[in-house]
Amino acid sequence: MLRGAEPATTARAPMQKNDVIQMLINGQETAHLSALDRAFQYGDGLFETLRIVSGEALHWRRHMARLRRSCERLAIAMPEVELLEIEAQRLCPSVNNGVLKITVTRGQGGRGYAAPTHATATRVLATFAAPAFPATHRTDGVELRWCRTRLGRNPLLAGLKHLNRLEQVLARAEWDATPAEPGIVEGLMQDNHNHVIEGTMSNLFCVRDNVLLTPDLSQCGVAGITRERVMEAASTMNITLRETTLDTAQVLDADELFICNSLIGIWPVRKLEDRCYPVGPVTRQLDTVLAQPEHSAHA
Amino acid sequence: MLRGAEPATTARAPMQKNDVIQMLINGQETAHLSALDRAFQYGDGLFETLRIVSGEALHWRRHMARLRRSCERLAIAMPEVELLEIEAQRLCPSVNNGVLKITVTRGQGGRGYAAPTHATATRVLATFAAPAFPATHRTDGVELRWCRTRLGRNPLLAGLKHLNRLEQVLARAEWDATPAEPGIVEGLMQDNHNHVIEGTMSNLFCVRDNVLLTPDLSQCGVAGITRERVMEAASTMNITLRETTLDTAQVLDADELFICNSLIGIWPVRKLEDRCYPVGPVTRQLDTVLAQPEHSAHA
Repeated sequence: MLRGAEPATTARAPMQKNDVIQMLINGQETAHLSALDRAFQYGDGLFETLRIVSGEALHWRRHMARLRRSCERLAIAMPEVELLEIEAQRLCPSVNNGVLKITVTRGQGGRGYAAPTHATATRVLATFAAPAFPATHRTDGVELRWCRTRLGRNPLLAGLKHLNRLEQVLARAEWDATPAEPGIVEGLMQDNHNHVIEGTMSNLFCVRDNVLLTPDLSQCGVAGITRERVMEAASTMNITLRETTLDTAQVLDADELFICNSLIGIWPVRKLEDRCYPVGPVTRQLDTVLAQPEHSAHA
Repeated sequence: MLRGAEPATTARAPMQKNDVIQMLINGQETAHLSALDRAFQYGDGLFETLRIVSGEALHWRRHMARLRRSCERLAIAMPEVELLEIEAQRLCPSVNNGVLKITVTRGQGGRGYAAPTHATATRVLATFAAPAFPATHRTDGVELRWCRTRLGRNPLLAGLKHLNRLEQVLARAEWDATPAEPGIVEGLMQDNHNHVIEGTMSNLFCVRDNVLLTPDLSQCGVAGITRERVMEAASTMNITLRETTLDTAQVLDADELFICNSLIGIWPVRKLEDRCYPVGPVTRQLDTVLAQPEHSAHA
């Protein structure tokens, strides 16, 4: 259970499947922060989502490297990594199987878009229970749909896991896992140039003629840590990889499809709308390589 | 001064020019809310900025109508207007000249984009001191620049004053009011189709050959309350108005330019980059009409 004072809101939402275990805000055990925080006012911040296994947050250095690059792009003062690590160490060891979410915001400010001259970043570290996914998602694959909600294009924000996520919220609201579409676990989003970019919470890979294809993210989308690991693994395995533009027909015509993120790893796609896919050899090989210990811990 | 508990953050940002006077979160006098609020996690909410004059929040009904329309578009449960009015009445009467900011979020949720089934919206009402603008901004006009930061296009979000404001934050960070560019008070933003859309905090109007032009906001931009009032005033004054696409050359070649929002009213543009403009008759007439009491209170 979350420790700290009761929320200021009048009603607590029903217990979520991913409910919070523990939270530190700027090192203090609390779940509350100022409504003047610029994350609340403008979505002016970034986040990282790490998987915790046996008390350890996986791929820490990769997540910290991305967070640093992202803070630089938004000119947010990156907190000391050592400080984040100390705080993560307060939360993670007691979690056997879960999620660490790290949010870094520009800090507090007044009304108005101009950032305070000497803002101190706000850092929120929260642990959550692991989402309860069926094991068959990884072994047998999942079913996807197309989302109607499009991603706007903006190269200044492309690739970042920033806090402006209304497009994902609207896309994810297009379907309900139960009861109407019980099988759908993810929706694929296009940008407004009809390029397929990613899932609402995952990156997409296609295999066509033994070539691994993944959408170019220079205009929009989140450049995921697992996407990065898949690309590196492909390189070591001599699988040809291309970051490119893909339309819906090219995705539908793939030999293999899979989605990935830091929590799920790799999930084969067994069905996209009316089209069915086998769990193919390239997907299997990449999943095997990514699951190896040297590829999961301390990297 | 803000009443309520001390912020959870370790460092208070330096006193802002627009610092908060008083704040109510779901009716409670506090400045803190849950880090599980979806506005903090995803920018999943909306806001309204109202001018307070002599204890009264101007154009209340217009702002409530826009908030209702916007909540409907995002499927956020709109709080009762009567409740918002009661809370505004607790804050505004003591403010002679200031700002009321009303933020409505989807409420609290767990990790993940899917919204809770029965989320209760969070409402934050905060009063701020009026920004200290020179009186000459209204009489003599202001200087503008072009922003390099572009607006992404997304018709699902276009027009809404939502909480995904990183583009405005990045655009506003392009210049500093002092000392390098002392005269610049606003920057104009284009979308990624090279259409001029708006200022970072204001809407734009141009006068060309006695026709009033304002950018079409069907793809991006905020449909401001003062923009709406200007358009209605133009109609009653038999000024021809067109919502249209405008490129930078068309804006630069205008006979008159002005920007507007709920806090500034109308400000003529006297300079845009190297081009200078007179404070023209159409701008003057619209400013006069908008300043009339029947156009400012209870509408």
